[in-house]
Amino acid sequence: MKGGNCLNEKTTTLTIEEKEIFMLEAIKEAKKAEAIKEVPIGAIVVLDGQIIGRGHNLREESQDATAHAEMYAIKQACAAIENWRLERAQLFVTLEPCPMCSGAMILSRVAEVYYGANDPKGGTAGTLMNLLSDERFNHVAYVESGILEQECGDLLSSFFSKLREEKKLLKNQKKD
Amino acid sequence: MKGGNCLNEKTTTLTIEEKEIFMLEAIKEAKKAEAIKEVPIGAIVVLDGQIIGRGHNLREESQDATAHAEMYAIKQACAAIENWRLERAQLFVTLEPCPMCSGAMILSRVAEVYYGANDPKGGTAGTLMNLLSDERFNHVAYVESGILEQECGDLLSSFFSKLREEKKLLKNQKKD
Repeated sequence: MKGGNCLNEKTTTLTIEEKEIFMLEAIKEAKKAEAIKEVPIGAIVVLDGQIIGRGHNLREESQDATAHAEMYAIKQACAAIENWRLERAQLFVTLEPCPMCSGAMILSRVAEVYYGANDPKGGTAGTLMNLLSDERFNHVAYVESGILEQECGDLLSSFFSKLREEKKLLKNQKKD
Repeated sequence: MKGGNCLNEKTTTLTIEEKEIFMLEAIKEAKKAEAIKEVPIGAIVVLDGQIIGRGHNLREESQDATAHAEMYAIKQACAAIENWRLERAQLFVTLEPCPMCSGAMILSRVAEVYYGANDPKGGTAGTLMNLLSDERFNHVAYVESGILEQECGDLLSSFFSKLREEKKLLKNQKKD
């Protein structure tokens, strides 16, 4: 069992075991996306050890540009506690968040953010920049990457590799 | 009539008159928020000269941290054209967007973004940073600030000044 990488000076309130248990729940969400041919990304929000928000990517099905896993999880969590402030909550997501989702985490003031795989193309919680650690905003969250990184990353690479195979097949069928 | 300030090297497709007409519609949205004691911020999305999305801030009423004007306008626009890609669309918002909303604009690929007042505390379309001009993301939008800046800013400053007055009154009443 390998711990994640803390990306700023805030502190975690969870053990490695707890982090992995919760990331497995985010992975369950990602698999729901995969099952309907959406890019497999999943997220959950935890408060006092309870999951109060869940979500998976639904961009294609909903045709809504904002339909990211984290947005659903945050909205559901706010609804669950009838409060837009998720101040003691932890958020788990299989892929490093984009600017929109990092921004939603700042706005909802989640205390701790844990993610699996890095996103070299658009990640803004450590890769391209770290919006969640930028003290010019009115909230800074604890950020830790690399929780079940391999499993989270494999889900995505296997999805895209299948997609490429399907496209190749389709191209070859058209040629025949 | 004074034009806005272009914040990057992309080009606008609108005249100053058109920009002001559309910003007045965003201001109408902001006033809907003000009428229910929400921070007065409004947004619209325009495609081919038609408004296809509208929204105003509803954070307190909805108790949803993500309930920003731009998010509603973008979601409504995607629903209107049944497509998450708003590639030829223009977005007008009375206040400079936060990271979440700037991110939603990148994801929905809006072509042009126009805003009224700068947000020195959290603006990410020119003030603290410019996410919409960052070429590391897979979309860059044209960005112009200062459209009816005074009107947009006055709405906000008068809202907060009233709020402070009310708080002061309440405090004095408690003392009596």
